[in-house]
Amino acid sequence: MKALMISADNFEDTELLVPYYRLREEGMEVDIASMKRGKIKGKRGYEVEVTKALEDVNPDEYDVLILPGGKAPETVRKQDRALEIVKHFLASDKPVSAICHGPQILISAGLMKGRRATCYHSVAPELQAAGALYEDKEVVVDGRLVTARQPSDLPAFMRETMKLIRMHGTLKHSAA
Amino acid sequence: MKALMISADNFEDTELLVPYYRLREEGMEVDIASMKRGKIKGKRGYEVEVTKALEDVNPDEYDVLILPGGKAPETVRKQDRALEIVKHFLASDKPVSAICHGPQILISAGLMKGRRATCYHSVAPELQAAGALYEDKEVVVDGRLVTARQPSDLPAFMRETMKLIRMHGTLKHSAA
Repeated sequence: MKALMISADNFEDTELLVPYYRLREEGMEVDIASMKRGKIKGKRGYEVEVTKALEDVNPDEYDVLILPGGKAPETVRKQDRALEIVKHFLASDKPVSAICHGPQILISAGLMKGRRATCYHSVAPELQAAGALYEDKEVVVDGRLVTARQPSDLPAFMRETMKLIRMHGTLKHSAA
Repeated sequence: MKALMISADNFEDTELLVPYYRLREEGMEVDIASMKRGKIKGKRGYEVEVTKALEDVNPDEYDVLILPGGKAPETVRKQDRALEIVKHFLASDKPVSAICHGPQILISAGLMKGRRATCYHSVAPELQAAGALYEDKEVVVDGRLVTARQPSDLPAFMRETMKLIRMHGTLKHSAA
């Protein structure tokens, strides 16, 4: 099982690192994609290695896509290649999980019309304008799309993400 | 199932937040104990609410103890009540997980003699002087004691901690 995360500088540190460590705990390989290789830095100063430039990502290789928040999605949503990748995941009905400002990328890809979803409170008007059915809840699951509002929602966000991965992936459970 | 974490100001942010969110993902209640109620702040600026003053902790209520790192353990290890609590967990053979500088608290409690363990590299001489069998590995499991070196070890640290909780606790697994 392989996961893809797409982010950029000024990511919300826990929204990238908590899912990243959680998926690796489960034994998954995780690629972090951004505009170019090298390091990206979170708002709180944590640095992570970009393992794939967006242009080198082959979305067929991955089972799940995670979109962390912070200020990174503002940059990522301007990248055509990022939007193509996100469309691939939704079109092939693979699990997609976006938190905080992460759903902005789904909005730019034109994928939110008629979908039940949540996001960071300040993003809600934009989500509604894109035709989504916004709910102010810690986590919203609509088919294989998981959305959450903020770092304090990470437990529910990862609980629902892991359920979808177990249901739709080939993940062997790690419990002893 | 209930978990106790003991920390203080200048905790290593991910070493507190990643286990905290992970245990809550699993449906566990988590208390964060420190010298006094209020908030404690991590080295990177994340703040968490202290839900128990050390003097109000009844260790019988908890199934597992987690000791995050950073500079917090330097302060915590000077608190007699913290050392009593840690001794209770070890004596009653409940799972104890300590990462990075967290094992300093176990050293001050006089609990490391003859135990296999790891810790942050700069703490290794002190751990060895306390009679522990130090290993430079991402995670060391000795009975129900789990130790790890640094944030990048969090996946292995939490994998082994969750295994012990599942084996020795009453945790119902959260998989769908």
